[in-house]
Amino acid sequence: MYQLGGKTVHNETYDMAIVGCGPAGLSAAVNAHIRRKNLALFGVKFCAPKLFRSPWIDNYLGFPHIKGEELRERFLNHVQEMGISITRDRVDAVYQENGSFSLQVSGRIYRARTVIIATGVEQVKLLPGEEPLVGKGVSYCATCDGPLYKGKTVAMVSYTQDGEEEVKFLAEMCTLVYYIPQYDEAPDTIPGVTVIKQKPKRILGEDTVSGLELEDRQLTVEGVFIERESVPAGQLVPGINMNGNYIQVDREQATNIPGLYAAGDCTGKPFQLAKAVGEGQVAALNAVKYLDA
Amino acid sequence: MYQLGGKTVHNETYDMAIVGCGPAGLSAAVNAHIRRKNLALFGVKFCAPKLFRSPWIDNYLGFPHIKGEELRERFLNHVQEMGISITRDRVDAVYQENGSFSLQVSGRIYRARTVIIATGVEQVKLLPGEEPLVGKGVSYCATCDGPLYKGKTVAMVSYTQDGEEEVKFLAEMCTLVYYIPQYDEAPDTIPGVTVIKQKPKRILGEDTVSGLELEDRQLTVEGVFIERESVPAGQLVPGINMNGNYIQVDREQATNIPGLYAAGDCTGKPFQLAKAVGEGQVAALNAVKYLDA
Ligand SMILES: Cc1cc2nc3c(=O)[nH]c(=O)nc-3n(C[C@H](O)[C@H](O)[C@H](O)COP(=O)(O)OP(=O)(O)OC[C@H]3O[C@@H](n4cnc5c(N)ncnc54)[C@H](O)[C@@H]3O)c2cc1C
Ligand SMILES: Cc1cc2nc3c(=O)[nH]c(=O)nc-3n(C[C@H](O)[C@H](O)[C@H](O)COP(=O)(O)OP(=O)(O)OC[C@H]3O[C@@H](n4cnc5c(N)ncnc54)[C@H](O)[C@@H]3O)c2cc1C
Repeated sequence: MYQLGGKTVHNETYDMAIVGCGPAGLSAAVNAHIRRKNLALFGVKFCAPKLFRSPWIDNYLGFPHIKGEELRERFLNHVQEMGISITRDRVDAVYQENGSFSLQVSGRIYRARTVIIATGVEQVKLLPGEEPLVGKGVSYCATCDGPLYKGKTVAMVSYTQDGEEEVKFLAEMCTLVYYIPQYDEAPDTIPGVTVIKQKPKRILGEDTVSGLELEDRQLTVEGVFIERESVPAGQLVPGINMNGNYIQVDREQATNIPGLYAAGDCTGKPFQLAKAVGEGQVAALNAVKYLDA
Repeated sequence: MYQLGGKTVHNETYDMAIVGCGPAGLSAAVNAHIRRKNLALFGVKFCAPKLFRSPWIDNYLGFPHIKGEELRERFLNHVQEMGISITRDRVDAVYQENGSFSLQVSGRIYRARTVIIATGVEQVKLLPGEEPLVGKGVSYCATCDGPLYKGKTVAMVSYTQDGEEEVKFLAEMCTLVYYIPQYDEAPDTIPGVTVIKQKPKRILGEDTVSGLELEDRQLTVEGVFIERESVPAGQLVPGINMNGNYIQVDREQATNIPGLYAAGDCTGKPFQLAKAVGEGQVAALNAVKYLDA
C-alpha cells in the first residue's frame, strides 16, 4: 500500500474486481474463484437487500418455496464456505487505465485487470436539474472530484450516513460547505460544515451548477455532491455504453469496454434472481477467458 | 383428439411447449407455470442426464457442494411440487403454421402458441455424406417423413432401441427396409425388415440419396433414416437460424422465428448449469410477454 494524492493505493492488481454482492455478484465470485482467479468482491454494507425483502421465492430452480431471507443466507454462505471475503465498501468509480482498471473505494484505490459490474437497479428519483448538470458541477464522488472544488463553495445532499465522512473531506479543502442530510438521525452540527435540514428542490445552473434551491432559501454553490446508497451505472463507469438506464451487454455479458462485464438487474429486464445468477456466471467465465487469452 | 394422416392430433393448443427437461427446460416450466400459462413439457425418458453424470457441483449458487444426482432430484422435485407433468417423449420436429406451432411427438401432434427449445448439446458425430443430404433423402423422423417413401427402398441407422418401433412403421409402406442397429442387444430379426449388423461408413448420393455404404457391402436406397438419442437443433426446427452448431438467440433468448425461444447449452457456451437455469427463466418470461402482447 502507498499514498497518492491523499488516497491509499493497494499494490496488488487483482485478476478480477466484482462490484456488488447481490445474486449476480456472488455467482460471479463463486465461478471466478473456482477458476482460481484472485478477486476482490465489493458490496455496500448489507448484501442483496432485495432478496432479504422478498417474502417467498418460488422460481429459483432447486428451491420450490423458500423465504428470500433464507435464500440470501444460503447465497452468502456459499461464498463464505469457499473462503471468498467481501470488502464491505461502496465502489464510487471505475476508471480504465492502460488496459486495466482502477476502482475508487471510499478514499482507497484498487486495481484489477477485469471488472464485473453487478450493482442491481435502484429506483432513484433524480432531482430536477440533476441529470443535465452531471459532470458540470454535479458529482457523486467527493473523494474523486472534491479536489476540483478547492477554495470554492459546495453543497452535499446525502441520503445515507456515509455522507458524514465525505462532507468532512470536502470541508478540508472547500471554503464553504453545506450539508443537506435526507435520512433519519442526521447530526445537527458537523465541524467546519453548515448543516441545513431541508429538502432539496432543484439544482440550478445553465452550463454549470450555480446554486441549489431548498424549501425556503437558495444556496449559491459551484458544486453539488449527491450521496446515495447506489451510484447510477452510467456514472459509475465513465465511457460505458448504456441502453436507457441499463448497461448494454452482449450475449457474453461484455460491455463496450474490453475487460469490463456486467450482470444481473443492471443489464435490464427481467429483474429476476435466476437471470442474475446465470449472468454472473457467464460474465465471470468470459472474464476468465479474457484473462487467459 | 382426432386422427390426421395416421397421426393423433391433440385438440388443445397450449400456451407454451417446452422441448427438453434439463435445467433450462425445467426452469422455463417453473417460470411459465407461475405466470399461469398452460404448458406441455417434453423430455426423452431420462431428464437431465448430464446433471446425473456430474459427480459434484460447486458453482450453482445456493448449494456450495452438491452431488449432481441430488441436484437433479431437487430440480425434478421442484417441477413436480408445482404440479407440472413431463410428457416423456422425444419431439421429432417443430413446425410453424399460421402464427402458431405444431410439434411432432412420436406419431402424435401437439399445438402451441409459443415454443422453448432447451434440448442441450449432444456431441454427435455425423456420418460422411449426412449433412449435405439432409432433406434430400436423409431424415431424422420416420413418422414424419416415412409416407414420402411409400413403395421405395430405405435404410434406418439407429443408435437407440427406439428405432425398432420406427422401422416397423417404415416396413408398413416401403417395399424394402434395411435396419442397421448401432446399439447393444439389438434384435437379429424384425418381421418385414432386413437387419444388418454392420457399421455405416457413408451415405451416398449427389443431389439425392442413392445408397448407404456399409463395411462389406453397399445398399441401394432412396432414403436413409437416422435415429439418435437427440435431434440436432438445426434439424428439429426447419428455418431456425443457427450460429455454427448453436441456436442463434438475442438477449431475450428469442430466435429468428417469432414466438420461438431457446435456452441453455443449445444456445452456445459456456455449457453451465446456472446459465441454463437463468436462460430458461428469461426465455419463459419473454414468451409470456409475447403471449400477453
Ligand atoms: C420485494 C422483492 C421481491 C422479489 N421477488 C423475486 C422472486 O420471487 N423471484 C425472482 O427471481 N426475483 C425476485 N425479485 C428480484 C430479485 O431480487 C433481483 O432480480 C435480484 O436480486 C437481482 O440481483 P442483482 O445481483 O442483479 O442485484 P441486487 O440484488 O440488487 O444486488 C446488487 C448489490 O450490489 C450492491 N451495490 C450497488 N451499488 C454498489 C456499489 N457502487 N458498490 C458496491 N456495492 C454496490 C447493492 O447494495 C446490492 O447488495 C424480487 C425483488 C424484490 C425487491
Ligand atoms: C460430467 C459433467 C459434469 C458437469 N459439471 C458441471 C458443473 O459442475 N457445473 C455446471 O455449471 N455445469 C456442469 N456441467 C454442464 C451442465 O450439466 C449443463 O450445462 C446443463 O445440464 C445444461 O442444461 P440444458 O438444460 O441446457 O441441457 P441438458 O442438461 O443437456 O438437458 C437437455 C434435455 O433435453 C432432452 N432432449 C434433448 N432433445 C430432445 C427432444 N428432441 N425432445 C425431448 N427432449 C429432448 C435431453 O434428453 C435432456 O434431458 C457438467 C456436464 C457434464 C456432462
